[in-house]
Amino acid sequence: MKALVYKSVGEVKLEERPKPRISNPTDAIIKLTKSTICGTDLGIQKGKVATCTTGTILGHEGVGIVEETGDAVRGFKKGEHVLISCWILGNTIDGTQAEYVRIPHADSSLYPIPAGADESALVMLSDIFPTGLECGVLNGKVQPGSTVVIVGAGPIGLAAMITAQLYSPSTIIMVDQDANRLKVAKSLGAHHGIISDGNVEDAVKGLTDGKGCDTVIEAVGVPATFELCQKLVAPGGVIANVGVHGTKVDLHLESLWTQNISITTRLVDTVTTPMLLKLALAGKLDPSKLITHKFAFKEMEAAYETFGAASKHNALKVLIEFD
Amino acid sequence: MKALVYKSVGEVKLEERPKPRISNPTDAIIKLTKSTICGTDLGIQKGKVATCTTGTILGHEGVGIVEETGDAVRGFKKGEHVLISCWILGNTIDGTQAEYVRIPHADSSLYPIPAGADESALVMLSDIFPTGLECGVLNGKVQPGSTVVIVGAGPIGLAAMITAQLYSPSTIIMVDQDANRLKVAKSLGAHHGIISDGNVEDAVKGLTDGKGCDTVIEAVGVPATFELCQKLVAPGGVIANVGVHGTKVDLHLESLWTQNISITTRLVDTVTTPMLLKLALAGKLDPSKLITHKFAFKEMEAAYETFGAASKHNALKVLIEFD
Amino acid sequence: MKALVYKSVGEVKLEERPKPRISNPTDAIIKLTKSTICGTDLGIQKGKVATCTTGTILGHEGVGIVEETGDAVRGFKKGEHVLISCWILGNTIDGTQAEYVRIPHADSSLYPIPAGADESALVMLSDIFPTGLECGVLNGKVQPGSTVVIVGAGPIGLAAMITAQLYSPSTIIMVDQDANRLKVAKSLGAHHGIISDGNVEDAVKGLTDGKGCDTVIEAVGVPATFELCQKLVAPGGVIANVGVHGTKVDLHLESLWTQNISITTRLVDTVTTPMLLKLALAGKLDPSKLITHKFAFKEMEAAYETFGAASKHNALKVLIEFD
Amino acid sequence: MKALVYKSVGEVKLEERPKPRISNPTDAIIKLTKSTICGTDLGIQKGKVATCTTGTILGHEGVGIVEETGDAVRGFKKGEHVLISCWILGNTIDGTQAEYVRIPHADSSLYPIPAGADESALVMLSDIFPTGLECGVLNGKVQPGSTVVIVGAGPIGLAAMITAQLYSPSTIIMVDQDANRLKVAKSLGAHHGIISDGNVEDAVKGLTDGKGCDTVIEAVGVPATFELCQKLVAPGGVIANVGVHGTKVDLHLESLWTQNISITTRLVDTVTTPMLLKLALAGKLDPSKLITHKFAFKEMEAAYETFGAASKHNALKVLIEFD
Repeated sequence: MKALVYKSVGEVKLEERPKPRISNPTDAIIKLTKSTICGTDLGIQKGKVATCTTGTILGHEGVGIVEETGDAVRGFKKGEHVLISCWILGNTIDGTQAEYVRIPHADSSLYPIPAGADESALVMLSDIFPTGLECGVLNGKVQPGSTVVIVGAGPIGLAAMITAQLYSPSTIIMVDQDANRLKVAKSLGAHHGIISDGNVEDAVKGLTDGKGCDTVIEAVGVPATFELCQKLVAPGGVIANVGVHGTKVDLHLESLWTQNISITTRLVDTVTTPMLLKLALAGKLDPSKLITHKFAFKEMEAAYETFGAASKHNALKVLIEFD
Repeated sequence: MKALVYKSVGEVKLEERPKPRISNPTDAIIKLTKSTICGTDLGIQKGKVATCTTGTILGHEGVGIVEETGDAVRGFKKGEHVLISCWILGNTIDGTQAEYVRIPHADSSLYPIPAGADESALVMLSDIFPTGLECGVLNGKVQPGSTVVIVGAGPIGLAAMITAQLYSPSTIIMVDQDANRLKVAKSLGAHHGIISDGNVEDAVKGLTDGKGCDTVIEAVGVPATFELCQKLVAPGGVIANVGVHGTKVDLHLESLWTQNISITTRLVDTVTTPMLLKLALAGKLDPSKLITHKFAFKEMEAAYETFGAASKHNALKVLIEFD
Repeated sequence: MKALVYKSVGEVKLEERPKPRISNPTDAIIKLTKSTICGTDLGIQKGKVATCTTGTILGHEGVGIVEETGDAVRGFKKGEHVLISCWILGNTIDGTQAEYVRIPHADSSLYPIPAGADESALVMLSDIFPTGLECGVLNGKVQPGSTVVIVGAGPIGLAAMITAQLYSPSTIIMVDQDANRLKVAKSLGAHHGIISDGNVEDAVKGLTDGKGCDTVIEAVGVPATFELCQKLVAPGGVIANVGVHGTKVDLHLESLWTQNISITTRLVDTVTTPMLLKLALAGKLDPSKLITHKFAFKEMEAAYETFGAASKHNALKVLIEFD
Repeated sequence: MKALVYKSVGEVKLEERPKPRISNPTDAIIKLTKSTICGTDLGIQKGKVATCTTGTILGHEGVGIVEETGDAVRGFKKGEHVLISCWILGNTIDGTQAEYVRIPHADSSLYPIPAGADESALVMLSDIFPTGLECGVLNGKVQPGSTVVIVGAGPIGLAAMITAQLYSPSTIIMVDQDANRLKVAKSLGAHHGIISDGNVEDAVKGLTDGKGCDTVIEAVGVPATFELCQKLVAPGGVIANVGVHGTKVDLHLESLWTQNISITTRLVDTVTTPMLLKLALAGKLDPSKLITHKFAFKEMEAAYETFGAASKHNALKVLIEFD
C-alpha cells in the first residue's frame, strides 16, 4: 500500500509499505477514506517530536471502513464506517496517512459513523474539535452570558471558538497576527477580532467593561501569548491552555494571587467525541467549515507543502481524500 | 394612585390607593413603566393562594424607575431604570400592578437596566425566564447534544424551551394539548411538537432511538403529566419539576430505582437574572417573543379577562404599559 | 468443583459442577478464596429475581486468585490476587459461590489486591460498600457539616453510614426497627439511633433545629419508608434511594415542589472501588466491621440459613472462606 | 478606648483612641472579647501593605459582643456574641485589635455564636481556617483517598492540613524548614513530614507510588516553593496557591501542558464560615489546637514581639484576651 513516511528531519515521502495486519486480539484494520494533516505532523517533520522516529507513517486523524477485526473486538464489524481517535498513531506507531492503518484497542479508539453522514466534516472530529472543546471550552468553563477571548485563530483556536458557541457566551473575541484568520473567525461567529500587534489588553478591556474575560483560551504556545493571557483574564476567570509549549513562561502570581483565577492544562482524551458526533449529525455543528483545501491522497506531498505554508495559502485544514 | 386589587374570590378591580412610602431604610419606591400578569395572579384571583388576603394589590413582575430610596440602599438612585424581582410582592405585600410599588431589600430585589434596552422584553425577566431557566434547564442539566422534552407549552414551558437552547441540546420536543402552542413552540426553536392526546411515550421514544430524553421538564403540575414524565426520562436523566402541584403523585420506584435518574424541585431565586439580562442586552435572547397582547394599565381588568382565557385568545404573556 | 446452585424456589444446594473455562479472549478464571452472601441472593432463592433461572451458581461478591486469562486480558496474570466486581455474576451467568468462577471482561471486572491486605475485609468492597457510597453518600451529596439520616440499618445502610463519615457530616442519624442494629450503628460512628415505631419525624427534627436532614438515604425499599424520607428531608436537601422497590410510592409534590430538593436513584457501577480500595489499604476504612459470622465454603447451606434469618442471629454479613 | 495602632514602618503601639460610632445604618459596634495577630499584620508593620496607612488600628480577626447596631441591621442585637469576618478591617479601616470596632455591613460580616461555645477556638475562624479551607482544600479538590502535600507548615498551612482531613485523603504530607512545625503537624494529623532542605521531590514521589500528589497546597509564597509545587503535582492534580506572592514565578508549561493540571488562586471570602462554625460546635474540628500563646490585650506589644519571632518561640497563633 501507499503511505506517507517521515524519512528524515525536513523530509516526508509517499512510498510503498506492507499492508498492516492484526497483531493483538483487540486490534482492527481500517481502510482510510479521508484524512488530514495536523500541526503535530509538521512538528514531527521538523524533528521536534522526540517520541516519533524516522520511518514512521504519519497521521492520527481520519475516517474509514473496517477491513478486519481481532477476536476480542466487540463493537465493530467489517464494512462499518468509523471515525478514528487514537493519539499514538503517526507518532509511536504507524498512522493514518496511508491506505490502511492498524488501530490498537479498537473498541475505545473507533466511533461508528451512521450512513449518510458528511465524512469529510467528521474527520475534523478526530482531533481538532475535541481538543478545542475539551482543553479550551470545557476547561475554560464557558457559560451562557460569559465573555471569551481566544489568543490564536489557527485551526485549534477556531475549533475552540466554534464549540464555545455551544454554551452561548455573550462575547467571543479572537486575537491573531493574521488579518485573514480574524476575518474567517468573524464569519464563523466571533464577535470581535483584534490584531495582536496593537494594545490587545486595552482593546479587550474596552469590550468587557474594563474587566477582562471570564474565559481566556491560549491557542498559540509561546511565552508572549501566555503573558498576554494573564492580562486578559477577569477576576474569577480561567486561563485554559491549549497551546503546545516548548519552554517555561512567567506566571505573575504577584498580581494574580488574589484574583480567584484558575490556569488549566490538558491533553484531549476524546471524552467529548460522542457529543460532537451527535451535534454534527443533528446539524448543530458544521466542522467542515475549517476545510480550506482538498487533495487526493496521491498528492499528499503537495498537501504538506500547502499546509506547511498555511499563512501564504490562507489554509486552515486540508482534506485528504482516498480513492 | 391607581392599583389592581384582589377584592374577593373571582374578583379583581382597578381602584384608587395611597401611594406607598419608604418604611424601612432598605426600601425603595418604584414608579412602574411596564408590568404583566402571571398564572399565579390568576390563582390568587381564584382563591387558591392562602398566603394572599383580599385587599392586596396584585403583581410581582415589572420594570420601572426609581422614585425614592431608603437610607441604607446603596446600589440605586432616583431616576434609574430597574427590573424588579421579588417574590413576596402581590402576595404577602402589595405588588406591581399599580402606579407605584414599595420594594423591600431594594439592593437585592432590583437590577439596573442600561439606557436603550427593550424594557418590554425585560419585564419577562422578572419571573418567567429565571423560573424556566433555573427550575427547568439548570435543574434539568441540559447540555450540548442532549435530548430534552418539555411537557406543557405555556409561558413557563416556552421560557424553559427558549433558555434550553442556550446549552445547544440536539433535540427539543414539546408536548401540549393545544396545537397553537405547539406551533408557537416550533416557531421559537422546538424541533418537534407532540399533541398530548396520542401515545406521547411512543412518539418521544421514536425521536430518541428508543431511549427517552436526558432532560424531562414538567411544566403543567397535575398527576397525569408527572406520570407521563416518568415514561419519557432516559436512564441517567433528570425530571425537573416546574409545575405547581396541588396533590400527591405516583412515583414508580419499582421501575426507576435502577435507572440512575434524579427528580428535582425548586422555587426560582433569580440567581440567573444577571446572566439573562446580559444575554438579552447582547441580543442572544429575545424574551419579547412570548408577548402576544398589550394593554394600557387602565385596561387592566380587560387584560385579566384575556389572560384568564388564554387558550381562547391564543395568549401567552400580556404586556401592561403605564403612561 | 463444588458450587452453590439455585435449584428451585426456596432451595439452594451445594453440588458438583464442571470447572469453568475461558470462552472469550477477554475472560479470566478466578479461584475463589473468600466470598459472601448478599440480600439479592436471598431474593433469587425466594424466586423474586426473574432474570436468574434455576441451575445458576449464585454469588457476585468475592476475592480470589487468577487461575487463567484469555489472550486479550492485559491487566492481570496467573497468581495475582484480585477483587471481583461484576454484576451479572450469580444472576444471568454462574457466580462466585463456587471454587472457580469465569469473569467476563476481566480488565474492567477485577481489581488488583496488593500483598498483605486483609482479604476478608476487601470482599465487602465487591458490592456493599460501593453501593452504599455511590447510591447513598455520593448521590446524597454528603458534605462536611451536613446532617444525614439513614432509614434502614441493614448491611447497605451501615455501609452508607460508614462511608458517609469520609465527608465529615456533623450529624448522622440511623432509623431502624431493630434495636440491636441501632446499637451496632452507634458503635460504628452513628451519632443517634431512632427506633422506627415512634414519631421519627419529630425525633429527627428535634436533632436538626427543626429543619430535617440535608441528606436522607432510603435503605429499605417499601412505600412506608419512602414516605418517611419525604418528611425528614430539609429544604435544599436530597433523598438518595438505595432500597430495592417492588411497587410504586406516593410522592408529595404538593408540599415538595417549592422545597428545592432532589430525589435520586442509581445502580452501583463501582466507579468508587479504586477509592475504597485505597482507603481500606491506607487504614482509613475498615469494611470488616460488618462481618458478624464466618463459614467454611463446605458449610455454605448453613450460611444461607443464618443469613436468611439475619435478625434472629444478629447477622450483618457472613464471610465464606475457601480452603 | 485602648487600640493597637500602626505608627510607622516597624512600629506598632498601644494607645488611646475614641470609641467608634455607627456611621452607616448597616454598621454595628462590637466590644471585643478575643482577638489574634495575623501574618498580614506583621506585613503591615513592616510597611509592605500599600493600602494600609499609618494611624490605622490593626487586626481583622476577633470575637466579641454586639454593643450597638444601625437601623438597617436585621440579624443582630445588642448583647449577642459574634464572630467577625471582614477583610478591610485593620487595613483600609480601623480593626479589631482594640476594645471596640465598627463593623460595616454587619449582616454579612458577623456570624452568631451560641452560648457555651469555646470563643478562644472560634477566633481562629475569622480568617485562618476559612483561608486554609477555601484557598487550599476546596480549590485543591481534596477527596476521600486522594494524596495531599502542603508546602509550608505555618498557621495557614496547618489550618489547610486540619481542614483537609474533613475529606478523608489517604495521605497528607507536610513540607517545611522547621522540624518543630513538622512535629506539630504530625501531632495534628499529618501522615508524613519532610524537611525542605533535602530532596523533597524524591521523598514525595516515594510516598505516592512515584506519581506525586493529587493536591499540592502552596502555603509559603516565594518562587522556590512554587517551583517545588510543580514537581510534586501528579497528572490530573491541582496546585492550590495560598501563599502571598510579591514577585512573578516560573511556570513550567513545557512539561505541564500535557498533564491535565490546574493552578488556582483565591482570596478567602468566608463562604465556608457557617460550615466551619457548625463543625466546631459539633466537636468535629478543634481550631484551638493552633493557639500556642496567650496574652492579655494590655500586653499587645509583647504579643507582636513573640509572633514576630514565631520560629524562635515555636509560636503558631497567639490569642489576645480582653478583660
